[in-house]
Amino acid sequence: MTDKAVVVLSGGQDSTTCLWWALERFGSNNVEALSFDYGQRHRIELDCATAVAELAGVPQSVLPIDTFAALGGNALTDAGIAVGSDGKRELPVTFVPGRNLIFVTFAAAWAWPRKVTHIVAGVSQADYSGYPDCRQETIDALSTALKLGMELVFEIHTPLMNLTKAETVLLAEELGAMDAMSLTHTCYAGQRPPCGRCHACVLRAKGFAEAGIEDPLLRR
Amino acid sequence: MTDKAVVVLSGGQDSTTCLWWALERFGSNNVEALSFDYGQRHRIELDCATAVAELAGVPQSVLPIDTFAALGGNALTDAGIAVGSDGKRELPVTFVPGRNLIFVTFAAAWAWPRKVTHIVAGVSQADYSGYPDCRQETIDALSTALKLGMELVFEIHTPLMNLTKAETVLLAEELGAMDAMSLTHTCYAGQRPPCGRCHACVLRAKGFAEAGIEDPLLRR
Repeated sequence: MTDKAVVVLSGGQDSTTCLWWALERFGSNNVEALSFDYGQRHRIELDCATAVAELAGVPQSVLPIDTFAALGGNALTDAGIAVGSDGKRELPVTFVPGRNLIFVTFAAAWAWPRKVTHIVAGVSQADYSGYPDCRQETIDALSTALKLGMELVFEIHTPLMNLTKAETVLLAEELGAMDAMSLTHTCYAGQRPPCGRCHACVLRAKGFAEAGIEDPLLRR
Repeated sequence: MTDKAVVVLSGGQDSTTCLWWALERFGSNNVEALSFDYGQRHRIELDCATAVAELAGVPQSVLPIDTFAALGGNALTDAGIAVGSDGKRELPVTFVPGRNLIFVTFAAAWAWPRKVTHIVAGVSQADYSGYPDCRQETIDALSTALKLGMELVFEIHTPLMNLTKAETVLLAEELGAMDAMSLTHTCYAGQRPPCGRCHACVLRAKGFAEAGIEDPLLRR
């Protein structure tokens, strides 16, 4: 049986790079994309994920998660909290507690009946923006919990774990994902073309600049 | 600061016993109940959870999770699959992949902004009905993932982990939870009074019989 993989696809730069990584590693017939509709403030992210999956030629499933919005109190789902307005908290205001843990666990629950045993997620501890659920040791512990809890040998791949944004840009180019980059969404302000001022835009621009590559999103 | 605890309360016998355990351990002013509305086939479970929380005199929050229903394919949320109709699968048909992992992770996400650091869950590996996400080692790995992923020292309490159903009944009596037992729901068929024939009813009856205690639910 050929190994099958599911890529957690947000529609951003990192998960899109992961999708192209998975295409090369597993072959396009063995890859599916899974996106989450969790009440993100900017629906454009999901539209981008769909466009990226279409360009990749892989099936995309979208799973709803209404729980984060009900939990409330974070800037990625709550329109009442300004991103970047918070200098005092220990974790960024965009931190949704356990978001990546939930995404990967639901990806495993989706994968389980389908006998898909590889899960690919675009988390990175190098440029992790203060999100502790992106770190290797967190993912390792979750991987153990999933293997034990579902009695299936999942492998969680995090090809960007130790890459800087610049290295991720170079990887994307190497994988031929630059056309897809023009479809991705990064801006926290939800603007297209991107605002260029929010933390996410600044980080993305820095990555492309350091890689010496023009961001195809800005060329459009 | 006094330690605060959240109990994952389904409205069943086990989680209700855990609530009374938490009342004794942390005091009623420091305990809250958290229930999940995840599309369970029998809404009566949630009503029971609310009645139990009221009897305990603790606040109850209900978080929606629409993801399990979207994942489909299991007997606890899907009316098209008969419970107990499946003799061939390795795991019971009532297994929702990762359900307890998700519940505890969302409980942690709920607890995080509230500085609640104790999570109490009624999972048991002694009578775990073939659910691998109830085992101690699964919970231990999840606990590690949550601590790392949320940068908070959560303690996950599973007071029933190594208790048989009979021992759980005896614990409930010791904790004065027998009035609450009359409010709980166990029957997979969703019947009240319970059907007495489904796997859950049989397991509950066996536990009370072995404990030598009459089930107050049957006395009503």
